[in-house]
Amino acid sequence: MKKVKIALIQMGVIADKEANLHKAKRMIEEASEQGAQIVVLPEMFSTPYQNDCFPEYAEVCPGYTTDFLSKIASENGIYLIGGSIPEKEYEKIFNTSFIFDKNGHILGRHRKMHLFDINIKNGIRFMESDTLSPGNEVTVCKTEYGTFGVAICFDMRFPELMRLMVDEGAEMIFIPAAFNMTTGPAHWHSTAKMRAIDNQVFFAVASPARDEDASYVAYGHSVLYDPWGNVVEELTEKEDILYAEVNLEDVAKYREQLPLLKARRHDIYELKTVK
Amino acid sequence: MKKVKIALIQMGVIADKEANLHKAKRMIEEASEQGAQIVVLPEMFSTPYQNDCFPEYAEVCPGYTTDFLSKIASENGIYLIGGSIPEKEYEKIFNTSFIFDKNGHILGRHRKMHLFDINIKNGIRFMESDTLSPGNEVTVCKTEYGTFGVAICFDMRFPELMRLMVDEGAEMIFIPAAFNMTTGPAHWHSTAKMRAIDNQVFFAVASPARDEDASYVAYGHSVLYDPWGNVVEELTEKEDILYAEVNLEDVAKYREQLPLLKARRHDIYELKTVK
Repeated sequence: MKKVKIALIQMGVIADKEANLHKAKRMIEEASEQGAQIVVLPEMFSTPYQNDCFPEYAEVCPGYTTDFLSKIASENGIYLIGGSIPEKEYEKIFNTSFIFDKNGHILGRHRKMHLFDINIKNGIRFMESDTLSPGNEVTVCKTEYGTFGVAICFDMRFPELMRLMVDEGAEMIFIPAAFNMTTGPAHWHSTAKMRAIDNQVFFAVASPARDEDASYVAYGHSVLYDPWGNVVEELTEKEDILYAEVNLEDVAKYREQLPLLKARRHDIYELKTVK
Repeated sequence: MKKVKIALIQMGVIADKEANLHKAKRMIEEASEQGAQIVVLPEMFSTPYQNDCFPEYAEVCPGYTTDFLSKIASENGIYLIGGSIPEKEYEKIFNTSFIFDKNGHILGRHRKMHLFDINIKNGIRFMESDTLSPGNEVTVCKTEYGTFGVAICFDMRFPELMRLMVDEGAEMIFIPAAFNMTTGPAHWHSTAKMRAIDNQVFFAVASPARDEDASYVAYGHSVLYDPWGNVVEELTEKEDILYAEVNLEDVAKYREQLPLLKARRHDIYELKTVK
């Protein structure tokens, strides 16, 4: 048995960074008390999901928020996937997830690689590229609980990136995310489920809680799928913590019984990073 | 408007090639009378889906069955995606789909590229590679009704192949397929739906009707999704014909509103054929 207990923090986010950070802290501490070993915050958990907020809430990192998260990780002895925050570097702002080990060290950093630009007739319009710059790195972390990949929200739309994480050894994929009331009901569950099935990984998506009064209304429904595509656990739209104990031996089991990854035709097509 | 009427033939298949061919003919003629312009047969529609039948039912092609299908296509003035049949070439047998234009000419040929080998504990065991050889070509056909890709069953498990068809211009993808009672309930709808969403194509999967007495029990549920992932039409497990009129302008519309294909990071990763 190779078990690990995961918690996804589906927190409400308001227009007050300090309040958001302290809510994150309280909920992570609660998850840790419940035995969680890997804890995942949602996308943009420190700021409202608005282009006019990103520059205001952005920080140079490491800095205030990463120090804050680092301390929580080490005090609780957990791996912490710190959702994402607007990260400032010179003139650019990135949508960035910092990942902390049990000692509070930064184990990885994922800058959202695919920016969310959408303009649906009678639905959502949002242009992340108005304020944000994209990252350029595939992010995979090795830990004693197994190897996991991290990407952010719109990144999960791209099977290519999921495959690249799996090729680097990912057995679990964690996605801090914030789908909306157009794309959420249409695509949230299907996308997460299929990435789990295709890549034969545990696949977890952590959303902020839904706030109907926000300018961008997050869908909620944080969910974790097993490598066969079964829902292990799912939340509603409300503020809550998802707990799931997963057995990573299932990854090898499914990959052996239905050898999808081995059956790829590397002699016919090739997917690789080009840098 | 760029409309096309599609029919998926969900036919029962028995251990009698001649009877299967004539049932296919009757059902295609019925679809044509109903105005279908593109008609799709299911995987292995001429033979029971059994490794011990494939060599017995296999034919050198062009040959008897392709001539038979060619005549139906030209007589009815339809594009016919001829499901698949066991195709013999020297010592090898392929699981092959022949595609006919309105004049009965062979417009394309897809040999299943990913062979179906599965061994699920307390579930299905089947090893196509015991008798079949894999094909090596991506298959896309251009017609006055739009450009479509064709792949077979297990092929649709591989996002890479779907992408390669789209990169060659596919606006619709047709999959003659035969999932079973283990993988069907678990993965059939999710897979087809997600390929439609990811690639922003109309995505159709044509299954044989379910026969509980067969050694391999097909799942049925032939279904056609639009590029947003909505079910346009779906069948039950019973013998039936699915009809769907689709507007190919929806492909461009969804690709503009949610620019997934454009948003791929070709500067970071690359997917290509390696031959």
